[in-house]
Amino acid sequence: MYQHRANKIIQRINELAAISDVDGMITRVYGADAFVAAGKKIVEWMNQAGLATRADNIHNIRGRLNCNVENAKTFLIASHFDTVVNAGKFDGPLGIIMGLDIIEHLIQQKKMLPFNIELIAFCDEEGVRFHTTYLGSKVIAGSFDVDFLVKKDKDNLELADCIQKMGGDPNLLANDSLANEDLLGYFEIHIEQGPVLYKSGIPVAVVTAIAGQKRSELIFTGVAGHAGTVPMDMRQDALCCAAACIMEIEVFATRNKNNLVATVGKIDVLNAASNVIPGQVKCTLDIRSPDEAALSVACDALNKSLMDICHKRNIAFAWNTIQETAPVLCDTGINKILKLSIIAAGYKEVELVSGAGHDAVPLSLICPVCMMFVRCFQGISHNPLEDVETKDIAAAIEVSDKFLLNLISTFNN
Amino acid sequence: MYQHRANKIIQRINELAAISDVDGMITRVYGADAFVAAGKKIVEWMNQAGLATRADNIHNIRGRLNCNVENAKTFLIASHFDTVVNAGKFDGPLGIIMGLDIIEHLIQQKKMLPFNIELIAFCDEEGVRFHTTYLGSKVIAGSFDVDFLVKKDKDNLELADCIQKMGGDPNLLANDSLANEDLLGYFEIHIEQGPVLYKSGIPVAVVTAIAGQKRSELIFTGVAGHAGTVPMDMRQDALCCAAACIMEIEVFATRNKNNLVATVGKIDVLNAASNVIPGQVKCTLDIRSPDEAALSVACDALNKSLMDICHKRNIAFAWNTIQETAPVLCDTGINKILKLSIIAAGYKEVELVSGAGHDAVPLSLICPVCMMFVRCFQGISHNPLEDVETKDIAAAIEVSDKFLLNLISTFNN
Repeated sequence: MYQHRANKIIQRINELAAISDVDGMITRVYGADAFVAAGKKIVEWMNQAGLATRADNIHNIRGRLNCNVENAKTFLIASHFDTVVNAGKFDGPLGIIMGLDIIEHLIQQKKMLPFNIELIAFCDEEGVRFHTTYLGSKVIAGSFDVDFLVKKDKDNLELADCIQKMGGDPNLLANDSLANEDLLGYFEIHIEQGPVLYKSGIPVAVVTAIAGQKRSELIFTGVAGHAGTVPMDMRQDALCCAAACIMEIEVFATRNKNNLVATVGKIDVLNAASNVIPGQVKCTLDIRSPDEAALSVACDALNKSLMDICHKRNIAFAWNTIQETAPVLCDTGINKILKLSIIAAGYKEVELVSGAGHDAVPLSLICPVCMMFVRCFQGISHNPLEDVETKDIAAAIEVSDKFLLNLISTFNN
Repeated sequence: MYQHRANKIIQRINELAAISDVDGMITRVYGADAFVAAGKKIVEWMNQAGLATRADNIHNIRGRLNCNVENAKTFLIASHFDTVVNAGKFDGPLGIIMGLDIIEHLIQQKKMLPFNIELIAFCDEEGVRFHTTYLGSKVIAGSFDVDFLVKKDKDNLELADCIQKMGGDPNLLANDSLANEDLLGYFEIHIEQGPVLYKSGIPVAVVTAIAGQKRSELIFTGVAGHAGTVPMDMRQDALCCAAACIMEIEVFATRNKNNLVATVGKIDVLNAASNVIPGQVKCTLDIRSPDEAALSVACDALNKSLMDICHKRNIAFAWNTIQETAPVLCDTGINKILKLSIIAAGYKEVELVSGAGHDAVPLSLICPVCMMFVRCFQGISHNPLEDVETKDIAAAIEVSDKFLLNLISTFNN
């Protein structure tokens, strides 16, 4: 049975993947034609399942299954349907289409619900078009920043105009938010986007936290010089110093690998030439940890050791913080129900920290959140090679069915 | 007296610096209006001094002082008058204008010469316009590559057409070369373009060799990944590996600092983003040594240790050689005369290897070469901050006068 449902999910994943703004790749950014078409497709599927559907003002697609209990709370199941440029098929859509499948299964079983369920297909998690974050889930959480409305895309179109073109009213976004007191919790199914499940041969995992992140720019300033004429011991080579610091960052993060990851992703030499000793180097530093205190302590310790390295090399050093987000802890109560469901389905219980951000981050402001990761091929995402095996989707359906039933019985008791 | 002559030299340096294609900076690339005007100015000065002048086909400016001895050999004094973009005043012109001054001084003294002297202002050492090397001195040495003639500048003008526009015949370049049997030697005065004299407080140095050079591209290929989701111990980070190799290159070169310099000047991460683990990194490696065998041994040893580092990190490694030039040894006989002249003028004898290339490189194919470096401010060159103190020019004149007199008496004995 799970295999049959998994096949149907894959079929829908493929249908959605075919709706793209660019031939030969999956690209479905917020507000573009393919995005609107994909939204209609999701509405159609929700309607078929028997949900009460609507697109809200920012163009989240929302499908509701109301129970017969007066003043019942609502449990949210959600993920996003926008994509990055040249995306994979599963990042986002998997959580919507699987969510719909398990709700449909409850409806078919005529299960009496003690709470309402709302399935939300968030409109913009990737933030590609307007260089924003979480447009859709921030509206739901009531934390949408109205300054976003004047942000422009590359063709100079403002977000507010983009919303209006799709039939939404940018002045009524606040009406679409949900209230904390009405919510029971939030559940998001997502591909892992990392290699841990793939390498350990396990189909699903419970997410304990979404890592906090500190993005910084490091600037090393030495003295440029002629590559042929300045002796080795008279140099103030900014790149050699940056290399020493990159090594130190790697050693530090590896020593603390259970608690954080650190990445230097970009590096640029000012006026670089093969025959010029680098005078200034800028690089990025991305540090993530599920533990806010540990993240702060790590940054302080690293800053100190990088300063020492630069001081010894007579290189000026600057650490500029670009962006900081706090970690989000998933709800231990709901996670416990998810873990029991995983064990009941016969799988090993694995806990993972999400190093990537998700819509669960804004939602955590208004309700307890819970996420389940599904194994993906080699941990690859944001790439056409992104893949999930049908048998893993079947495993995730089995776990999710049990999870919802356990949630219902927990609520009934 | 030396101070007076040094002032005149500085005045001419400034006159030449004022002849530029770009307002507010010194830019005088081969064949452009400022270049032609500067050539005329040099001809005028040569004529005033009493030299027999001409522009040859490639537009080297040549001034000859013939002696009265039949079948006498010729001693060359030379440097270049083209510049890089936004150049300093001294790189090139100093050697021409000082050369003219010491020849003029010989003439004024009515010194009987046992050899001819030819002062050559080379037309193109920097190679900016046609991305070439040593256009002028290669013609003199008879090693001009005719393939250069079809090279185009950024406006699609061919070198051959550029030569014709200045009145030269690109088919007659070979006529302008000098024959080995006619030449006594070659002397070039140049700013050091490095910090050794500046830091040691000494005005001039003898050049023992012009370093050989190996320019390579290093390619590190790992696996790109999400900066948040791949644990530290599952990464194949190409940039961390490149950083480890840059450290190894620096340690290796510093250990062998008396024999070589090594520089990584450019580094590029493929599809770099702050939240992506670098999958591929390319960087340049520039290694220079006056000792051809040492250069070869060093490259082999470095290649091996970089391969080891990459192997341990599971990173694919490629070392592509882009360009190789052999070291040039300056003539020990002429250098000995120059050293004695430095000591006679009361300065400490300093030997330096030139890490930068010079017109002496092609000339070494046809005659013994000798170079004298003059201290420059902080070792800065190819930059408007390039500067030489008048007192150092005075010191260099004194040394050069003595050098020519010593050369004459050596030849007479």
